[in-house]
Parts: sequence; C-alpha cells; structure tokens
Amino acid sequence: MHFLWLFYLPSLALESHAAGEGGLEFPTFDGKDRVQEINKKNYKQELRRHEMLCVLYHETLPQDKGLQKQFHMTEMVLELAAQVLEDRDIGFGLLDSRKNAKVAKKLGLEEEGSIYIFKDERVIEFDGELSADTLVEFLLDLLEDPVELISNSREQRAFEKMDEDIRLIGYFKGEESERESAASQPFIQLHADKIKVAKHLTLKMNEIDFYEPFMEEPVTIPGKPNSEQEIVEFVSKHRRPTLRKLRSEDMFETWEDDMDGIHIVAFAEEEDPDGYEFLEILKEVARDNTNNPDLSIVWIDPDDFPLLTTYWEKTFKVDLFRPQIGVVNVTDADSVWMNIASDEALPSAEALEDWIEDVLSGKVNTEDDDDDVGYSDEDGEEEEDDDEDDVDDDDGDHD
Amino acid sequence: MHFLWLFYLPSLALESHAAGEGGLEFPTFDGKDRVQEINKKNYKQELRRHEMLCVLYHETLPQDKGLQKQFHMTEMVLELAAQVLEDRDIGFGLLDSRKNAKVAKKLGLEEEGSIYIFKDERVIEFDGELSADTLVEFLLDLLEDPVELISNSREQRAFEKMDEDIRLIGYFKGEESERESAASQPFIQLHADKIKVAKHLTLKMNEIDFYEPFMEEPVTIPGKPNSEQEIVEFVSKHRRPTLRKLRSEDMFETWEDDMDGIHIVAFAEEEDPDGYEFLEILKEVARDNTNNPDLSIVWIDPDDFPLLTTYWEKTFKVDLFRPQIGVVNVTDADSVWMNIASDEALPSAEALEDWIEDVLSGKVNTEDDDDDVGYSDEDGEEEEDDDEDDVDDDDGDHD
Repeated sequence: MHFLWLFYLPSLALESHAAGEGGLEFPTFDGKDRVQEINKKNYKQELRRHEMLCVLYHETLPQDKGLQKQFHMTEMVLELAAQVLEDRDIGFGLLDSRKNAKVAKKLGLEEEGSIYIFKDERVIEFDGELSADTLVEFLLDLLEDPVELISNSREQRAFEKMDEDIRLIGYFKGEESERESAASQPFIQLHADKIKVAKHLTLKMNEIDFYEPFMEEPVTIPGKPNSEQEIVEFVSKHRRPTLRKLRSEDMFETWEDDMDGIHIVAFAEEEDPDGYEFLEILKEVARDNTNNPDLSIVWIDPDDFPLLTTYWEKTFKVDLFRPQIGVVNVTDADSVWMNIASDEALPSAEALEDWIEDVLSGKVNTEDDDDDVGYSDEDGEEEEDDDEDDVDDDDGDHD
Repeated sequence: MHFLWLFYLPSLALESHAAGEGGLEFPTFDGKDRVQEINKKNYKQELRRHEMLCVLYHETLPQDKGLQKQFHMTEMVLELAAQVLEDRDIGFGLLDSRKNAKVAKKLGLEEEGSIYIFKDERVIEFDGELSADTLVEFLLDLLEDPVELISNSREQRAFEKMDEDIRLIGYFKGEESERESAASQPFIQLHADKIKVAKHLTLKMNEIDFYEPFMEEPVTIPGKPNSEQEIVEFVSKHRRPTLRKLRSEDMFETWEDDMDGIHIVAFAEEEDPDGYEFLEILKEVARDNTNNPDLSIVWIDPDDFPLLTTYWEKTFKVDLFRPQIGVVNVTDADSVWMNIASDEALPSAEALEDWIEDVLSGKVNTEDDDDDVGYSDEDGEEEEDDDEDDVDDDDGDHD
C-alpha cells in the first residue's frame, strides 16, 4: 500500500494557443467535471455503461488543507485523462474507501491509492506513477487488442525486440476463443500463424511459448492445447522475472514486490555505451540464473526518471552517470553498493554472480556497510559467452 | 517562435510521505526560491559563478491574471529543476525580453519562450516540452562528457543502437583538443580508439565518420585531420536528416524546422509489430533518399506523447492504433493522409516513395483533400531489399 499518489502533482496542461505551432497543441483542461463519485447507487450502471471503468480507490478526504489541495491535484489527473479520452467510452470515478466500503468490497478493491480498471468482467490494477501521461498511455494500451498477429520476419523481429515484457506466443490456425480470452488478462500474448515463422520459433501447432523478460529461450507451457485457466496459472506462477525493468506504469507494484524487504537494484543508462554494456552483462547473469526463485534484479534506467535521479544519488550515495548495482532496503532506503572500479573495468558476469551470491547469503547486506564487497577487476572478461561478437575485445584498459 | 511554454503546466511534485515506499519518493518543491531575474547587473557574475547557467528568455509578464498564473507555473518548472539539480552547480534565471533587451542582445538570445543554457562559452537552446522531467533530463545530459570511448564490441553495438541521434565517430590516438572542443557542441561525438573496432567501422587514423539518424552507412568528413570549425560546419550543413524522430526535448525546434510550411509526418508505434514494420519501411525509404535535400520525414511514436495522441486523432482524423503517414500544414494543422488498406497490407518502400514524390511535387497536398492518393496493395512486398531475413515472408494476406 502506498500513499504517494496523494502527494504527487502530475503533468497537466492549461489552455493553450500555440501560435504557429499547428499540430503540437497540448490538451488543456476545460474545467468540465467528468469524474464522478462511485457509490452503491450508481456502480452497477457505470460498469454497464462503459467499455472500461477507471476508478481511483482513495482514502476519505483528509481535513488538512494541504492534503486536500494535493488530493484535488490527483483528481485533476483523472479529469484531464477523462477529457483526453472522452471519445473512448471510458468511465472515470472516485471511490471513498470508508464511505463506500461495501461497494469496494463487492468490487474487490484492496489497495488505497491504486486505480482499478474494469473491462470485460476483469479488474486490472494500475499501480504506477499517477501522472496524466502515464495513466493515459496505460489506458490506451488496454484498449488495444492484446493479441497481435506475427506474419512476417519484420513483425517477428519486433516481437524479439519487446524483451522488457512477459510475452506469450502461440501457433494456431483460425480462431481460438480460449486464447483470445486468456489474452485479455493484463499480460501480452502474441500469435504467429505463419508456418515459416512458427518453425523459426520452434513452435508446434497449438503450442504456446512463454518468454520471461530479457530471456532468449522460451519455456513451453505444458499440456497443449492449453485452457485459459492453465495459461493464466502458468503466467501467474512465473510472473516475477529474474531481471525486470522499473517502469512508470507499474513502478509501485514492482517496488512493493520485494524479496524479504530488499531489492537488488541495478542502474544502467541503456543509451550510454557503458550502461548498455553493463545491461548486457546483467542479462547474461539473469539468463544464467533464470531458475533461481530467490533472484529478481530491478533494473532502473535513470533516463526514465529524471526527477528521481538526483534523489537516488543522494539517498544511495552513488554516481548515476556510471553503472551501479546494490542492495536496497525498501523500508528505510538504506543501501550498500558494489564497488565498481571504473566504467572501463565493469565487472564480468562471473564477478557479478559472486557478488549476488554474497547478497543472497546475507554476507553483503545493508546493515553493516563496512562489509562492502569490492570487485577486483583482474577477471574483467566482459566478452565471455558473448556469441554474436563481430569484433575482438580488448581488456587492456582493465588493469 | 512559439508561446506554448507559457500555457503548459508541467509535472511538478508536492510534499510526499510515501509510507513504505523507501526508495521511490518523488522530489517535492520546498518553496525556496532558486531562480533569479537576470539583468545587466548580475549576468556576467552569474555566467562566471556556475558551470552552467540556464535562462528562460520570456516575454514581459502579461496583465491577464490567467496568463500570470500560467507563467507562474512555468517558473515552478524552473524552480523544481533548480531544486532537484541543487548540487550540480547550475544557475537558473529568468530574462525579460523587454526589460533586459540589451542583456538579451549581448547574450544572443532570440526566441522568446526558449531556454538558453550557457556552458564553456557556448550557448545551447532548449526548445522542447517545458516539463520538469524533460528539462532536468536535458540538463543532466549536458553535464555528461559528450565524448564516449568505444573500446569493445558491446560498446560498439550500443553506438550502433543509438540510431535516433546524429553521431560522429573518430579514430584517434591520445588526446585531441580539437575533437574535445568540437564535441562540446550540442551534438554527440563518439570516439573509438581500439584498432579492431576502428577497422570494423572502416575508420582510418584521425578520420571522423558522420552518421545521419537511421542511416547504416556513414559519410566521412573530408580533409582529415579536421579542425573543430570544419567538423561544426559539416554537421551544421548536414543537420536536417531524411528521417527524424519527434522527441520531447526538441519537439518545437523540429516542428519549426518545416519544409515550406509542411511536414511529412509518419505515426508508428515502435513497440507494436505493425508499427515496427512500418518504421523499418520508413528507414528503407530514408536510406534510399538520403541525398534528397527536400525530404525530411518526421516520425512520431504515439507512445511518447500520450496526451497528444487523441488530439492528433481528432485534428488529423486518423486512427493512431495503426501506422499512418501524411502531410501536415504546420500553420493550420490541415492535413491529408495516405490511404493504407490495413495493418496486414502496409505499403512497400516503393509505394511510399511514389506517394512521397506526389507530395513533393504538390500532387498530394493539404488543400484539396479529394486528391487523396490511395495505395493499391498489389505490390505489397515489404521484404524486398530486406537482407538479414532469416525466415521467409508471406504476402498471402495482402490480396
């Protein structure tokens, strides 16, 4: 449970007359109320009336003027989202956790501060950054068909590039209602129906492969053809990946899903050569350890969270212009970080795995920072099991 | 010149007590003023005092209460940026275009509503979305060394992946002051000093290659070794690419750089298989036409601008869940769009090039929408000069 939404003023837009900017006018809140209170009188009707219903489950409005102002700002996020999405048949509402406790119970709402989206008899929780951008993007994605047809090599490369997400790909002929309905769960499912693509992906008819984020090798869901329930159970069971990216659309959900109160956090700027290199090493580590249930590394790209970057640098006392990996206590944000000699001497996958072992065994922990395990860069062979290499590597500058 | 900054309320953050969210507290404006008025008395001192000075060049504060409120919001963006970057030795200021016209002239400020950053005797204009996120990310990037050392194959792949930017790569031994100072221009320069990497990139000693966005083949800057002036002149001359991505950090700069009042705009979601496929076709078109000075396609990924997506759909009357390409009149946002039969029958590179020719010749224009040129999908061979293909393609569903 988090309260941050209550205090975060998101990006809105006021009236705009961008002279000579035809084509780039940001939306402006027109002051018209579109978000309504959801209560026992209207909730059934609202659920029926819209293709999607988007409800903020919130604490009772506090007395404190400041908190009220901040709550109003949160309402504004919903109002702007409702206005921007006006033509999309999405209802927007606020549900007071005390005043309308019974309705909340009926709807199965649990986490105050979360937004719940109702679609096709399903409830999807939005537990991300409560800004208009993030919420609108999330809702627009929900409106898109979760099933994509992979019918040529370019679309297949697109599928391979989407490695930050959990992906399912099945090989089917014609319509598969089971598949379709499973796909309306909040995870992506893709669909290859071209036999050549299927062959390339080593898919047999009616077989569904599960790709964990950043994994090259899929796991085939056993017992094909699979029922919707089987698919959902399999995905739920394999939901927490070995390496996951912190994303604004589910950042709190990810952060709350800690491992006994800690996270192993890696900072790497994908657009920076050193950051990219470190990320490649992290993927290598994740692939080697994909069957370790105790390991889930949270990768943060500082470029995705500019407003948090300097806060993280202060809180964790690290330089985020360089790749970093550490252990963070999610309760008090106490942390300890691996000692990386320099950008030009990143740890090898092996060195990282040794350090992670020390973390999981408790040898490295946030309580005694003196116990910081340094990295000796004598074995800085980044390139080891790195197949696609087309130019040799030079470790000369590692010593 | 644009006024949009004056009316756009960006993402701020108020006080936050994220219970149990140790590690994810968004910054909160503490109310302390850090942004000061820049005038003839203090501008020299401010330039001397900081590593970087960040100045919003603005119109004189209007009488209108609403406009004043909106201007205050813009100030808040700077205040939050100043607070977040407090430890970075960056000065923040406001410069009134009427009140301090002389100082503006001395500093060479021209576009009201733009932010100018002074660093190492250079002026860099920020003409992007005026939100705290975008501005802070831009400033943090400026603090990073623009020269990156490419010393192994992973870093080289990182370089190859950064294809949205103008990139320079040179092959040098030791320090090159010319190179360093050229690099502090607001464009990226990378530096390979490992002979194997250089060979792979077909670079000779002291040679500098210029990569236009989305191009695989570089152009070598003639007359090596090049002086800073030669490098800067070459880049300025080749600045406008054949295909460019609309990015929040320079969206207005890009939009203002129109071709005789129009833009050829392509919408493609890179994360969507059809969008990715269309983008690959666009890159093919760009590569075939890289020497055509009259062609510069603006690629917009709707995922990057969730708040503008539905506005664009209304203004341009297109469905942005699907790839689209059209001509937009930047003054009145009037537009005409290519008729793309379906996601499963995207136009081939050839068909796109024919359509673009019709645009450049004026046959397709925003004035007579009846003249909309349809796309006959008989020649829908997306795969034509598509080398890396590892699986065959199936155009069956194009007819």
